[in-house]
Amino acid sequence: MKRTFLFIYLFCIMIAASFSQEKKAFTLNDVIPGGSNYFNLIPQNMPGLQWWGDICIRTDVEDIKTIDVKTGKETVLLTLKEVNDALQNGEKPYKLSHPVKPLRSLQGASLPWEKQKIVKFSGKVGDERSSESYTFFYDFGLKKLTNMFRIGEEGATNFDFCKENGYLAYTSGDHLYIIRQGDRSTPVSPHAAGKKEKARDIVYGQAVHRNEFGIYKGTFWSPKGSYLAFYRMDQSMVTDYPQVNTTTRIATLEPDKYPMAGMTSHKVTVGVYNIATEKTVYLQTGDPTDRYFTNISWSPDEKSIYLIELNRDQNHAQLIRYDAESGERKELLYEEMHARYVEPQHPLIFLPWDDTKFIYQSQRDGFNHLYLFDTQAPREPETVQGKDPECRYRSYVAVTPITEGEWLVQNVLGFNAKKKEIIVASTEISPLQTNLFSISLKTGKRTLIGSDDGVHNAQLSGSGTYVIDNFTSAKVPRIISILPTNGKQGTTLFTASDPLKEQYNLPEITIGTIKAVDGETDLYYRLIKPVNFDPTKKYPAIIYVYGGPHAQVVKNTRFYAAGGWDLYMAQQGYVMLSIDNRGSDNRGIQFENRMFRHLGVEEMKDQVEGAKFLQSLSFVDANKIGVHGWSFGGFMTTNLMLSYPEIFKVGVAGGPVIDWQFYEVMYGERYMDTPQDNPEGYAGSNLRAKAGNLKGRLQIIIGGTDPTCVPQHSITFLRACIDAGTQPDFFIYPEDGHNMVGRDRVHLHERIARYFFDYLK
Amino acid sequence: MKRTFLFIYLFCIMIAASFSQEKKAFTLNDVIPGGSNYFNLIPQNMPGLQWWGDICIRTDVEDIKTIDVKTGKETVLLTLKEVNDALQNGEKPYKLSHPVKPLRSLQGASLPWEKQKIVKFSGKVGDERSSESYTFFYDFGLKKLTNMFRIGEEGATNFDFCKENGYLAYTSGDHLYIIRQGDRSTPVSPHAAGKKEKARDIVYGQAVHRNEFGIYKGTFWSPKGSYLAFYRMDQSMVTDYPQVNTTTRIATLEPDKYPMAGMTSHKVTVGVYNIATEKTVYLQTGDPTDRYFTNISWSPDEKSIYLIELNRDQNHAQLIRYDAESGERKELLYEEMHARYVEPQHPLIFLPWDDTKFIYQSQRDGFNHLYLFDTQAPREPETVQGKDPECRYRSYVAVTPITEGEWLVQNVLGFNAKKKEIIVASTEISPLQTNLFSISLKTGKRTLIGSDDGVHNAQLSGSGTYVIDNFTSAKVPRIISILPTNGKQGTTLFTASDPLKEQYNLPEITIGTIKAVDGETDLYYRLIKPVNFDPTKKYPAIIYVYGGPHAQVVKNTRFYAAGGWDLYMAQQGYVMLSIDNRGSDNRGIQFENRMFRHLGVEEMKDQVEGAKFLQSLSFVDANKIGVHGWSFGGFMTTNLMLSYPEIFKVGVAGGPVIDWQFYEVMYGERYMDTPQDNPEGYAGSNLRAKAGNLKGRLQIIIGGTDPTCVPQHSITFLRACIDAGTQPDFFIYPEDGHNMVGRDRVHLHERIARYFFDYLK
Repeated sequence: MKRTFLFIYLFCIMIAASFSQEKKAFTLNDVIPGGSNYFNLIPQNMPGLQWWGDICIRTDVEDIKTIDVKTGKETVLLTLKEVNDALQNGEKPYKLSHPVKPLRSLQGASLPWEKQKIVKFSGKVGDERSSESYTFFYDFGLKKLTNMFRIGEEGATNFDFCKENGYLAYTSGDHLYIIRQGDRSTPVSPHAAGKKEKARDIVYGQAVHRNEFGIYKGTFWSPKGSYLAFYRMDQSMVTDYPQVNTTTRIATLEPDKYPMAGMTSHKVTVGVYNIATEKTVYLQTGDPTDRYFTNISWSPDEKSIYLIELNRDQNHAQLIRYDAESGERKELLYEEMHARYVEPQHPLIFLPWDDTKFIYQSQRDGFNHLYLFDTQAPREPETVQGKDPECRYRSYVAVTPITEGEWLVQNVLGFNAKKKEIIVASTEISPLQTNLFSISLKTGKRTLIGSDDGVHNAQLSGSGTYVIDNFTSAKVPRIISILPTNGKQGTTLFTASDPLKEQYNLPEITIGTIKAVDGETDLYYRLIKPVNFDPTKKYPAIIYVYGGPHAQVVKNTRFYAAGGWDLYMAQQGYVMLSIDNRGSDNRGIQFENRMFRHLGVEEMKDQVEGAKFLQSLSFVDANKIGVHGWSFGGFMTTNLMLSYPEIFKVGVAGGPVIDWQFYEVMYGERYMDTPQDNPEGYAGSNLRAKAGNLKGRLQIIIGGTDPTCVPQHSITFLRACIDAGTQPDFFIYPEDGHNMVGRDRVHLHERIARYFFDYLK
Repeated sequence: MKRTFLFIYLFCIMIAASFSQEKKAFTLNDVIPGGSNYFNLIPQNMPGLQWWGDICIRTDVEDIKTIDVKTGKETVLLTLKEVNDALQNGEKPYKLSHPVKPLRSLQGASLPWEKQKIVKFSGKVGDERSSESYTFFYDFGLKKLTNMFRIGEEGATNFDFCKENGYLAYTSGDHLYIIRQGDRSTPVSPHAAGKKEKARDIVYGQAVHRNEFGIYKGTFWSPKGSYLAFYRMDQSMVTDYPQVNTTTRIATLEPDKYPMAGMTSHKVTVGVYNIATEKTVYLQTGDPTDRYFTNISWSPDEKSIYLIELNRDQNHAQLIRYDAESGERKELLYEEMHARYVEPQHPLIFLPWDDTKFIYQSQRDGFNHLYLFDTQAPREPETVQGKDPECRYRSYVAVTPITEGEWLVQNVLGFNAKKKEIIVASTEISPLQTNLFSISLKTGKRTLIGSDDGVHNAQLSGSGTYVIDNFTSAKVPRIISILPTNGKQGTTLFTASDPLKEQYNLPEITIGTIKAVDGETDLYYRLIKPVNFDPTKKYPAIIYVYGGPHAQVVKNTRFYAAGGWDLYMAQQGYVMLSIDNRGSDNRGIQFENRMFRHLGVEEMKDQVEGAKFLQSLSFVDANKIGVHGWSFGGFMTTNLMLSYPEIFKVGVAGGPVIDWQFYEVMYGERYMDTPQDNPEGYAGSNLRAKAGNLKGRLQIIIGGTDPTCVPQHSITFLRACIDAGTQPDFFIYPEDGHNMVGRDRVHLHERIARYFFDYLK
């Protein structure tokens, strides 16, 4: 009996040993971005793939190749060596006066003109300390440089190249410049032209409105390159948030203009610079106080500029056309009102075959869909209710819906002009997915391009007949293909393996749905069981939460979008759960806007449903539920710890919002209105008021100079806890912003993990 | 058998229950200053005891009494009621225009003139919101007000009353004023007189040099009240440390002039304001750059002002006389040089019976002693070596030592002029004590006044024949007596009990000595055994450390100076040890200055001897040694955790110095010189360099706007740990300074205790 037992025991040990030899345990350095081994363990990619008209090319380190769309066969188009030879032996006027430092890679190069054999690339020239940045144009037919220009200013950024006129727009400091050749930039903003306006107070050519409303840049070349439209932001009236830099000999102030909810905001105007006359006119929008000028769009003939204008309440959007030459306001084309908020995020897209029609995107029917506007078909405006009953709209031209249904368009890739098709990415197959479709504008018929699985990132060719498709899913590490947009079979260029899956012992990850607290809405969850799962055990469990708008934590992509930390904690013996509560992305506007004026309340109810689901699992210790999240997820984590202390025992909240009055105007007021208009909502979501409820262990972690959730959130929360006699924990990542990157990110996740090891074991 | 066991078991429970009924367990609220029950559990005191010439009085809430020095019998001198009657019915010019708010207490009153029946007191008048502060003079012989003046400025402070001329000097903002009656202040600093100097850059009438060199005020009335000497500090050239206030709607900058070691410091001058002419002259010191003007002293005839002037290196002090009327520099009387540093801390004290002689205090013989200088006996200066072989001095007048020996004078209380005696407090009996002596200047004979035990705080009567003695020791909770200065028996006014000792189960506290690492020097320790000590157990142990100059943590006073937190941790099952290492107070300059140019190194060696002592105790778990300290003790704690990680497993460091280059010029450079002069010393004591050594658990705690150890210390340390891959813990008390007070102090100690409960158990 005893001998038998010993035998079985040894056998088990041997099995365990062989298992552990076969598949290793991973560390945070293996699975956290910034970790020393992270890049070795993610599925490989093919950087540099792009279109040169209808020719697929790949800009690589040593050369640029063409790739045959039918066979995948690669042919070298030009080499790094010939580019470097041309650089060394440039003839006037492209002869460099410095000793030329060879270019190391062609990966960042592009071929702007589909009919011309010209490569554009940028590089440093001369010694390492030089801040001069050159842009070169190399003709690989003629095998010589055809243009070159130099930007001398350190800190030049926001480069915007116009292939129509060959100009590069860029910003330096808070000013805007353009350059075409040589080293003579032309100032567009008045300061550089002699007029004195204090930098930081007036900002030219940069993204405004804190990058909300789809704004990600501040310069907009006209279609033929005759004009440069740009944002000008006057923030002289905005209060400074005093950020402190502790890396100087004695700490120094680095103030940051930060308009807080309900406070005075910046004033934005839109300038139009005429390249020929070198004069700027400003669009005659009227008083810009408390208005948002979003989604700047040019008409194809360059005569008109369209803005989607939004009031500070963000519940009334108007599409307005301006005359580009005079700046005059010409007409109102469309307006949309909502009891909660309207959020325009997409510029107009004109049909390439008909300059009189454009596509407008709206959530008026509950989901983001495409609508075709006919500028030549005026109609009597009439106020109509959308399929979203809280939305009203009024159109002054004829509008035809292009898409409809309980799914949403995520991205418009472009057109196949010949076939009158539009190519989009959408959630039609699943809200967890991004699939590609071509849509016939004649018949409305949608044709799937590529797999019906997973998430597809795609680039459309010049004529719209092919896409380069970068596809991943929970099952597929990565497949890169060239696919015809007619839905037919394409050519696979590359199939990646997943080194992490191959080499390491990974946990089991499943997805499913539970009902939201409303009893109707399906919420997607991702459940990760511990590595070497034993169903007879009771494991502690952690919910990783985000919970805010515009994000989704469960997707049909690698590991169902689980982060490396989730995998790591599963390896360490934790059950990991994530749920996309109402309020999160890709489920339509009514799913999202439930939290209007009382952020956190509905979102938490759904997360509590998730916690109850965990507690219902036989292998979860119902008394050991933890929670972790960052940013909005930090708000959720802190809020859950304080609102449901009987459920959540340990939490780590990163960069949390504590009091929405400390958040910025654009994002904050969209969901909360102003503190003046919604005092109850602000009071109810102010976590300081709940500081006395803290029973479990809660660690708050922030970046020392977080410009997004400023330190005032967490610092005032600590004060509230001290006054209430509760004991949160706290940590700062000095000089870091809203998120930790690189090695700090590994350190951070080690810290977060340790907290659960200490208190939830 | 079983029945017997049950019986014994029940019996033990009964004993335990009866013990716990007899003496309670205390909480942090019982033993931490700021705790809700703290004041109920400390030995009672007799506030308001003071001398009115040779009459002992007590200013109480409802009245002011005289106390007979022989019998202790109390007689009411005047009542609060009569004062309030006088206030209500004041006659012109002392009739108040407001409705008068009754005064609530006479505890803060004083009787400035020993021959006059006049009580001086201050109070608010009118409604609660008024910032007006009145000073009243009430004659309890005439039973009426005899003077009154009003200070209208909010934030007026630094009140300095001159009983010779009846003026009150005070500061408001950064300016200096005097007032004598009514509501008309006279500005002394030029800004208020019309000249514009930016507040904060130029500061008048306040303590300068960061309160080092014994400086605690900025105004100095001349002996007859004809002049007001004052400090003027120009700190326009000093860098700002950017402190942030997070309690405003959006956080605001509150910069603080902070001269860091090696950086540009402020410039101080000394003004002399003539009351009669209303003109100011400045002492002609020459260029004030990098010089310290300390210990301002008046000659009794008001003709001269003496400064002890120190160079920035702080190794050369000069006693200089100036002409008060002209500001001219008149003579150098004495100078003292030291290989390490000189630290003048005491103004001159002229003999009351001979205006030509004064007492100077010096550590030139290794301990602070008194020297009698004869201004009328010039002599040829000669450089002499002190008994401290690193000290050299040179005197230009005749000097006679008054005291000598391996003990030090802590305080000069005054004189008995009739008997030509000086009354002092000293460590002659023990370095752990403060005892009172009268010293005959004729014979040098010292006579002990009162008990040879403990620590005595005393006030000397007008003629020097009596002291009010407030005495505490480890054995004596408090005895308050009136003692004759001839050493004879006195009258006991009050014997306090110790409510904490009576009501609560307290730990055993013992003291003793161990040898310093030099094998010779005795170091005093205090050892606290756990409450309900069981010698067969192995307890975790914590060292509470300070370790820096000018402080001592073991004294013969209540609980041998153990803090409430030490007692609490002993109650929670920890052995608590404290040691005054070399570098600490009351042991002489050579004991102190061992750390010169390499702070921390020698101090830590001694603390390690303490840790070894702990490890040698049978009831201490040698693997569970923790450490906690604040300020310099925070520096020591962090340093010990990083330098001796094999010994110290858990530490809590409060408001620590991390890098002496971030500390201020005066204190920092005294011990470390400048970073330019002592780069090795600064590098060696920079704890960031050791951040990678962290093995145990270390929590750093700071006040959010600590103006003493600015946040840059700890914030840069966190960065160093992150970069080195170690994991300290961290907490901030928002808006708190260098120390937490009130309820925050209880919260803080709960936090510190919890950390040891979590990780050292």
